[in-house]
Amino acid sequence: MKRLADLGERVAIQRIAAILTKGKYNLGIGDDCAAIDLGNNYLLVTTDMMSQRTHIPSQMTPYQMGWFLVAINLSDIAAKGGTPLGVVCSFGLPKKTSEMFLRELTKGADACAVRFGTTIVGGDTKETTEITLCGTAFGTMKKDEFMSRSGAQPGDVVAVTGTLGKAGAGYYALQRNKKEKKLSNTLLEPQPRLKEGRLLAQLHSITSSMDLSDGLSASLYQLQEINSVGFEIDKKALPLASELDRHFHTDYSADPYSLALHFGGDYELLVTIPPQKFEKTKQTLQKHGIIFTPIGIVTQKRKILLLENGTKKMLPNKGYEHFKKHDF
Amino acid sequence: MKRLADLGERVAIQRIAAILTKGKYNLGIGDDCAAIDLGNNYLLVTTDMMSQRTHIPSQMTPYQMGWFLVAINLSDIAAKGGTPLGVVCSFGLPKKTSEMFLRELTKGADACAVRFGTTIVGGDTKETTEITLCGTAFGTMKKDEFMSRSGAQPGDVVAVTGTLGKAGAGYYALQRNKKEKKLSNTLLEPQPRLKEGRLLAQLHSITSSMDLSDGLSASLYQLQEINSVGFEIDKKALPLASELDRHFHTDYSADPYSLALHFGGDYELLVTIPPQKFEKTKQTLQKHGIIFTPIGIVTQKRKILLLENGTKKMLPNKGYEHFKKHDF
Repeated sequence: MKRLADLGERVAIQRIAAILTKGKYNLGIGDDCAAIDLGNNYLLVTTDMMSQRTHIPSQMTPYQMGWFLVAINLSDIAAKGGTPLGVVCSFGLPKKTSEMFLRELTKGADACAVRFGTTIVGGDTKETTEITLCGTAFGTMKKDEFMSRSGAQPGDVVAVTGTLGKAGAGYYALQRNKKEKKLSNTLLEPQPRLKEGRLLAQLHSITSSMDLSDGLSASLYQLQEINSVGFEIDKKALPLASELDRHFHTDYSADPYSLALHFGGDYELLVTIPPQKFEKTKQTLQKHGIIFTPIGIVTQKRKILLLENGTKKMLPNKGYEHFKKHDF
Repeated sequence: MKRLADLGERVAIQRIAAILTKGKYNLGIGDDCAAIDLGNNYLLVTTDMMSQRTHIPSQMTPYQMGWFLVAINLSDIAAKGGTPLGVVCSFGLPKKTSEMFLRELTKGADACAVRFGTTIVGGDTKETTEITLCGTAFGTMKKDEFMSRSGAQPGDVVAVTGTLGKAGAGYYALQRNKKEKKLSNTLLEPQPRLKEGRLLAQLHSITSSMDLSDGLSASLYQLQEINSVGFEIDKKALPLASELDRHFHTDYSADPYSLALHFGGDYELLVTIPPQKFEKTKQTLQKHGIIFTPIGIVTQKRKILLLENGTKKMLPNKGYEHFKKHDF
């Protein structure tokens, strides 16, 4: 009999999706959020679970766990262009958990929600063997502004918000110094791109969108599968995080570009956009202080290629397993 | 330093509620569902987590786990009188979990959602050490039909839908025979009272409402705290489940009334209603084949008394710990 370890989580999710009854008023499974048709608007819903053994590094403080839980859920609302309405959090905690831990966990969740214009509206606490946290965020948006994962067309520009590799920089900074605070915040307290998502949605120019929770390469492979297209990514165009410049010297083993391409946890938005609409979109975002960088194009050929020094190579599909999300 | 085991879960939830920032557009914490103000309507949201060690009895099949997860969440929507819009499910599962387990878990969740007029719209899967399942249900309703936990007035009739003690009967039937199927279904495949909740909400007669997940006594103590009232419950008026009559003979140790009063998991609705509105409400529910039984009255004095053979005794606050929910 097959076990989940043999199937892999993607196949497991396909199995789940094949069983579930499709609702009349929802878009079905496979996007960052479920979208429920409420007439003129969609209700967006997304849920993410994190557990101690596989998703919570030992350096993460309880405050950061709370922040992270809320941030990764709000990031899915951001990727569709929605406005959050609230978040519910379920805390599965061992009996021996201290009151201080619970307070800090709650403060972190609350702070992230409030920072991004929403609140924790409820939740649940249960006794578990290992720390297991589950968040559900919900939001709303006009139906015609919804940015699906599906819709990328050959010729479209591939673009990302912000910079890439900062979570990877944080990870390696922590490897070197467990008490490192500044860089590790980029890894442990991600910033959901809600403002960016709203602006992009209002411009009606995006053909497909998802958040970069799993890393750029893994995300491109997901978009390729959904859209039956390919991508050509220009390595030199990648907006490397300043954290990488400052801390990744030649004597250091991790390649900054490799972190920008493959390390998950940056929680920026990855979008495709028709070339004639790119400049106006970029200018609008710039006015709001947001970096928006073209990193390649959508191609008809279903391959994902990396352009480097005038040659094209296949981009490997490497998503780091830790912090990996498995939405279905 | 205090630990959760010292605090108890109710105090833990009070600590959480004290920290959280209150949103402009929601009713705050302490009811079965969060209610977000959407103009004429409320968006209802509720979440529940269950874990292997504390909430999943060994006889529960994977199908029943899925059913149970969805049912307990829909029960919270029912208690407010809402109509479900969808459910998201997060499955935290060990690596060694079989594909068959995942299929059955998914089928159970799907079947419960579809049975009660809704669907599973999305979710998450993560690797965990022990089985940990988290569901979030959301629904909608007209604001003026919302049945809060708060609003009970002295003189109101206390009433319940359906019958009491069937989950307890299922529990003891399983204790006697691990392969018992018929009675244990009442424990392991609860039926959320969505039809009952909608009918009650539309009548605009209910002053307070909650679901009986924790058992009648524990639920009355919760309503007492919220409403600053007391209750007098008539023991002989309790609508004992037929499952108790048939299987709890004199030689059996568990007292049927004790199960009806204290055993959680019946997932009926407990409501208060002004006496002049009781008969019409009862008749309306009867037309739909629903049993609706007056079991006592709301009193000014903040005590919960049980009337038995002409005497009044304090009703003890005994909620069974297994299947106990801890919403905040």
